[in-house]
Amino acid sequence: MTKAKLNFWFEFASTYSYLSVMRLPDLAAATDVKVSWRPFLLGPIFKSQGWDTSPFVVYPAKGKHMLRDMERRAERCGLRFRHPSPFPQNSLLAARVAQIALEEPQGVTFCQNVYLMQFDEGQNIEEPEVIAACLEAAKLPTDIIERAQEVPNKHRLRETTEEAMRHGIFGAPSFTVGDELFWGDDRLEAALEWAAKAEP
Amino acid sequence: MTKAKLNFWFEFASTYSYLSVMRLPDLAAATDVKVSWRPFLLGPIFKSQGWDTSPFVVYPAKGKHMLRDMERRAERCGLRFRHPSPFPQNSLLAARVAQIALEEPQGVTFCQNVYLMQFDEGQNIEEPEVIAACLEAAKLPTDIIERAQEVPNKHRLRETTEEAMRHGIFGAPSFTVGDELFWGDDRLEAALEWAAKAEP
Repeated sequence: MTKAKLNFWFEFASTYSYLSVMRLPDLAAATDVKVSWRPFLLGPIFKSQGWDTSPFVVYPAKGKHMLRDMERRAERCGLRFRHPSPFPQNSLLAARVAQIALEEPQGVTFCQNVYLMQFDEGQNIEEPEVIAACLEAAKLPTDIIERAQEVPNKHRLRETTEEAMRHGIFGAPSFTVGDELFWGDDRLEAALEWAAKAEP
Repeated sequence: MTKAKLNFWFEFASTYSYLSVMRLPDLAAATDVKVSWRPFLLGPIFKSQGWDTSPFVVYPAKGKHMLRDMERRAERCGLRFRHPSPFPQNSLLAARVAQIALEEPQGVTFCQNVYLMQFDEGQNIEEPEVIAACLEAAKLPTDIIERAQEVPNKHRLRETTEEAMRHGIFGAPSFTVGDELFWGDDRLEAALEWAAKAEP
């Protein structure tokens, strides 16, 4: 049977993406929906909106609520949430490595490891050693880090980010089913439902 | 028995406030939580963040998603949602009238009527005739419109808006239980749960 497809757009520096990355695999497994994991970068999208950093930094009241809201929601999901420092982290290396890692089934575990390192362990995911540890813990070869720096892989991330913008994506996590866009971890269930009802 | 208190902060021009205003009374009735309805204005808060209008207008990608998301969520709640025009509407009169209307039990019905006029019927709530019709349908006297323009009532709205800012409120709907802040219609259930567990 052909499965309907959900595109899952996530950014490694995004706090709410942490929740979806941890929750999605089990939720999707209970459906007929095929999930395409699409790491992308919010930086260029924020720049195009006139921000030089996360809106949670630009608008402190929003940032303060987000941190408290993340604490409450992580607790509900049985996850630890540590305020990341620095915030936002530089997610470029993680995203480039994820593109290659996700060609293997263990790629999803790699992505989860990166979020746990950042938001549970309090590590900085900009560091190649941190990313290497995430690969090893997912039983993936650490030479992916070098391969991730090759030009076609860099281009691919730029193209994915441009594709996200064409979909009207302005934050993470986001979910698309065809032209239908859902934004936010709190729309994950609705997006999966939509995908389950959509034509494959 | 003393009941725990939830402050419900809503803005008449806010689309997501529509959902909470319609959903809250039934949800709260099933709990021991006392709800204090606090109409306020987002305009001065947006101004303090450097916006001269709604962020949904300032950031069109966000505005486009909001309209589609509202359609989907209103449908789930059994509500109609019409794209408001103009958007955002001028909610000053509605908020001033609501302060007085909410001194009576029918005040909640008045507030719901205003949202239905705007988002279901497609009326402009800036018009005194529209507000008068909302009062009449709630069996409240229409002379509240004149009383709403008296200086102490104008001051009261300004004070409520300043109080919202002191709570760190930056959008609507918002919910507070003591110092605990929840933002967004999708946090309504969590806020009620929090209030139900809080000390009165």
